[in-house]
Amino acid sequence: MQALKGLAEALYDDIRTLPIVSPHGHCDPAWFALDEPFANPAELLVIPDHYVFRMLYSQGVALSDLGVGADADPRAVFRRFAKNWHLFLGTPSRAWIGHVLTETLGIETPLNAETADSIYDQIAARLAEDAFRPRALFDHFRIEVLATTDGALDDLSHHALVSDCDWNGRIIPTFRPDAVLDPSARSFAGNLDALADITGIATDSYSGYLDALRTRRAFFREMGATATDHATEVIHTEWLDDPEALFQHVRKTPNPDDARRFYGHMLIEMAQMSVEDGMTMQIHGGARRNTNHRVFTSVGPDKGADIPIAVDWVRGLEPLLNRVGNNPDLTVILFTLDETTYARELAPMAGHWPCLRIGPPWWFHDSAAGIGRYFDQVVETAGYWNLAGFNDDTRAFMSIPARHDLWRRAVAVHLSEQVNNGAFNRSDAEMLARLLATDLARDAYGLTP
Amino acid sequence: MQALKGLAEALYDDIRTLPIVSPHGHCDPAWFALDEPFANPAELLVIPDHYVFRMLYSQGVALSDLGVGADADPRAVFRRFAKNWHLFLGTPSRAWIGHVLTETLGIETPLNAETADSIYDQIAARLAEDAFRPRALFDHFRIEVLATTDGALDDLSHHALVSDCDWNGRIIPTFRPDAVLDPSARSFAGNLDALADITGIATDSYSGYLDALRTRRAFFREMGATATDHATEVIHTEWLDDPEALFQHVRKTPNPDDARRFYGHMLIEMAQMSVEDGMTMQIHGGARRNTNHRVFTSVGPDKGADIPIAVDWVRGLEPLLNRVGNNPDLTVILFTLDETTYARELAPMAGHWPCLRIGPPWWFHDSAAGIGRYFDQVVETAGYWNLAGFNDDTRAFMSIPARHDLWRRAVAVHLSEQVNNGAFNRSDAEMLARLLATDLARDAYGLTP
Amino acid sequence: MQALKGLAEALYDDIRTLPIVSPHGHCDPAWFALDEPFANPAELLVIPDHYVFRMLYSQGVALSDLGVGADADPRAVFRRFAKNWHLFLGTPSRAWIGHVLTETLGIETPLNAETADSIYDQIAARLAEDAFRPRALFDHFRIEVLATTDGALDDLSHHALVSDCDWNGRIIPTFRPDAVLDPSARSFAGNLDALADITGIATDSYSGYLDALRTRRAFFREMGATATDHATEVIHTEWLDDPEALFQHVRKTPNPDDARRFYGHMLIEMAQMSVEDGMTMQIHGGARRNTNHRVFTSVGPDKGADIPIAVDWVRGLEPLLNRVGNNPDLTVILFTLDETTYARELAPMAGHWPCLRIGPPWWFHDSAAGIGRYFDQVVETAGYWNLAGFNDDTRAFMSIPARHDLWRRAVAVHLSEQVNNGAFNRSDAEMLARLLATDLARDAYGLTP
Repeated sequence: MQALKGLAEALYDDIRTLPIVSPHGHCDPAWFALDEPFANPAELLVIPDHYVFRMLYSQGVALSDLGVGADADPRAVFRRFAKNWHLFLGTPSRAWIGHVLTETLGIETPLNAETADSIYDQIAARLAEDAFRPRALFDHFRIEVLATTDGALDDLSHHALVSDCDWNGRIIPTFRPDAVLDPSARSFAGNLDALADITGIATDSYSGYLDALRTRRAFFREMGATATDHATEVIHTEWLDDPEALFQHVRKTPNPDDARRFYGHMLIEMAQMSVEDGMTMQIHGGARRNTNHRVFTSVGPDKGADIPIAVDWVRGLEPLLNRVGNNPDLTVILFTLDETTYARELAPMAGHWPCLRIGPPWWFHDSAAGIGRYFDQVVETAGYWNLAGFNDDTRAFMSIPARHDLWRRAVAVHLSEQVNNGAFNRSDAEMLARLLATDLARDAYGLTP
Repeated sequence: MQALKGLAEALYDDIRTLPIVSPHGHCDPAWFALDEPFANPAELLVIPDHYVFRMLYSQGVALSDLGVGADADPRAVFRRFAKNWHLFLGTPSRAWIGHVLTETLGIETPLNAETADSIYDQIAARLAEDAFRPRALFDHFRIEVLATTDGALDDLSHHALVSDCDWNGRIIPTFRPDAVLDPSARSFAGNLDALADITGIATDSYSGYLDALRTRRAFFREMGATATDHATEVIHTEWLDDPEALFQHVRKTPNPDDARRFYGHMLIEMAQMSVEDGMTMQIHGGARRNTNHRVFTSVGPDKGADIPIAVDWVRGLEPLLNRVGNNPDLTVILFTLDETTYARELAPMAGHWPCLRIGPPWWFHDSAAGIGRYFDQVVETAGYWNLAGFNDDTRAFMSIPARHDLWRRAVAVHLSEQVNNGAFNRSDAEMLARLLATDLARDAYGLTP
Repeated sequence: MQALKGLAEALYDDIRTLPIVSPHGHCDPAWFALDEPFANPAELLVIPDHYVFRMLYSQGVALSDLGVGADADPRAVFRRFAKNWHLFLGTPSRAWIGHVLTETLGIETPLNAETADSIYDQIAARLAEDAFRPRALFDHFRIEVLATTDGALDDLSHHALVSDCDWNGRIIPTFRPDAVLDPSARSFAGNLDALADITGIATDSYSGYLDALRTRRAFFREMGATATDHATEVIHTEWLDDPEALFQHVRKTPNPDDARRFYGHMLIEMAQMSVEDGMTMQIHGGARRNTNHRVFTSVGPDKGADIPIAVDWVRGLEPLLNRVGNNPDLTVILFTLDETTYARELAPMAGHWPCLRIGPPWWFHDSAAGIGRYFDQVVETAGYWNLAGFNDDTRAFMSIPARHDLWRRAVAVHLSEQVNNGAFNRSDAEMLARLLATDLARDAYGLTP
């Protein structure tokens, strides 16, 4: 973890133990509903972490030897990981996993080929303890709220189990409807049928389809959701004059152009529904998915071959913003993988449109230097109040404290530099540190503590 | 303002009190022609400053409540601004306005909701003093020369009043002819008629049109202009084989594509006229104007909704440069809002073409970190002599010293880092500091002191 | 040269005197085959160095006055250079040439208009000494291996002379076949005929053409080559269903679109041949060549008017990577001039695909700040082992030690910052310093010492 000195250390100390607000991520609600122990160290730290296996794969380790898309002996997987631990020097994975090992699991031995087995056994012993079950860890981590990400067709049964049980942890869903909005999604037509079945509203007309979507949004709200989420490769929105016609067309024969246009229209519909129901809208833009066809075919999506591309937020969002963007009660959070858009597009846009907030550095950029570049490039134009605080955006539950800790350290470094450079004084920095650690996230997502 | 230590402070002290050379900006010449007091604190600091009201608008304050596009009680406007002063933490507006308040207006009280009225009254009292009239401030600010930006159809009567009066301040016009060059400009045909009326040269033929433009350039030169200026969203130039044909076409029925082509041709004509008459040519590229249609319709242009886009200087300027770019007597200054072009395009281009200079960080990038990124990315390839010094580019007259001060501090920081890193020695840095503070601007714009 | 302090200095001291591994560059093999003295100081330092004459040209010095594309008195050329030495303040050229003057040539006098003649004479005297002939300098510089870049039709006779002589310097060729791959290359059809003549294999069928290319690759391998090289403006690859048909077409009537498609196909064929024969493949992408038509027509290519453009590595390489990219025995090194692709594209791609390595900062970005930006933007996602070490990529033989020295200093600065920031400890940094100085380059190019 980033070393701190002087004022940075003092600012960090003030926010280090604040509760964790996690308004966007990919943890499995079943963990908290069932509260079963994590299976083994490889399942905990290697197999589900695309940051980890992508790096090992890039250096010639087969995915199947890592238990990805294939069964593999977890101890052998962990040995391969330990042997290659040096590959992560300089990466946030090294900081995150190092933090998990030392701070959460209490492992003092350095990780390498020789210590792999001993560390494996130590972790396995911890995982068998009650204190390392999901709910106990959630409490230990001082998580105030954790949002999952859930398809529009999900029944949220695990969320229901959590809220009906006697444990008080706050696990809320997020409405991610892309599979019923994007005609190029796999089995789009089937998804519309399922949407009709779940809601009891026929989706063979555009107006029925909208009603069904509204119904699902209401259900998610009832279950605690305060936000929606979208992921799109290219930023494109447009308002169709006759959406019914294109809807009828893309239901049957979606081609890429029509799919793009229809999805671009539906993003605006979603923004309009957010105006109605108050849900914060998230747009994650610019990841080209599954660029490695062999890996996608044999192992599936989310396997480290999603690569960022250049995006155009300005022209891409202009139709959406011109319909709803002047509404100060709407919140739309933009997440980019194209850092060139921080200063050029996102900061000027968020510094003008009442609805916009800039999401924190995302994915490849959620790192010490990445956060530094973010502050350097957004604050001068957007200020601090147009930011959305922090997201850990992880499916690696154990790493959540590490990720928030990395953010808080980077916040402290940034603010101390601002004070040293004369931008503002120490008491301003102390106030901004709390804002960036928790309050902006609460505010952007409508999460009262 | 940026805090300085050690060598940076020493370098800054050397250039702190040099005269201000302001070769490009948007002050109103009427201020200096009429020399009337500024109306009130809100008119001085809030209502005309798009940096200020855009930020307030982004956080939900209505433009009409800020006196933008509507009448509003100036004291109420100032109160709203004061109450939200924290929103500007980390932005250059905070540094600029802070400097105006303390250095120019002598206000020691911190600005906030409680002090708003008292500070309003203090400023109002100052504005009533003779020492705070435009000419007195101009002299007090030690401005050597101030260039305004003026449409080709402007009669420059205020400039005439200034040069005919007994005050010695040097206020010069800049020739900005886009409204008579770009067929997509509002009332282009009417503008051509006006051009004919003013010059007495018929503009219904292409050759007459060129003659009329030459005549206006000569008039601006007579009135002191040393430069022209253009603003364009997309960088496009091309040399037409038959400009007459397209001219006749776009006069009557401009479509976007033809307008773009014709304007691209006229940029080359303007560059060729600069070769003839020696005027420095400025190109400000990459701002998408008026992206918020409701704001544009209800309040007008320049209201904070202009957003940068990615641009391609290399292919966009190639036709222009291949006609005139090898001429070392021509000076063309490029201003970008797309910082990715600093190192990739502008520095390599300016480090080759004799005519090119890189303009200083513009608009959203005229800030401490923005200036740091600029030096970091242009100097290694372009050196210092291919830069154009500083522009304040402001319509906020009162902030001119603050903006030059911010630049000079950032110059001192950059040069001190260069010395500390071993790039060159202290005497080189002292020479470069003066170059960057005043001499490069004088040279790039042909402004002898 | 970059000044170093504390840990950075210690890390640098450890790697300062390591041998030089130069796996990619543009030195002339004739220098080492014939071992004749360099002609004069202008021929050594000014006339062949496009970094130098481009800067002088940008400030109004005629190329003909610099001996570029014209005969010129070398002493007069050197005087013009010396008089303008200040223009290079802040550029790597100043660091490189300064290093050559002081470290290699032993000149203590500062360079300027007054000292030009004396320094010219001192250099000329050195060049007359045996110790300053190419082979002696090569040994003195402790170069372990130097790769040249050679057209596919080159007979490599100078390389043969070097390997047949009693001098032990290792000079190896690199296979650069673009002139016989890219139908838009000058005299492409003639080049195919020459390829047939040299190999004795008819190139009028696609299969014969591939055989002839394989034969040339084998010849280069025999002569010591371990790598191929390609330079392309736009990144485009595609796999043709019927390459024979397009081959027959482009041989006769190449149009730009077909040429682009055919070349994009041939890049994949080259990658497939690299899988077969083990040669490392280099792709240098994004330089728009010869943008100054007058300079190109009158003086030729490589005269400082090549300018970077934005590129799309993700979509551009997807077809190639999906055919060969999962092969861990293949090495493809990507060099970009578009720094925005470091963090957005190259680091995520190299952090996934087994075949990919990121080349070092290239051309305009081979500089202290450029190297800093590179590490800042690639390491967190790609780690260190997905990098390819350093290339000097120069045709200025004398500057090779200076360039490696600049890289090693920048490596030491980067690693010391990592240690100070807590990313890893000092012994990690010491190991990484050696890796970055020599071992990664050896490994990426298959060069055993």
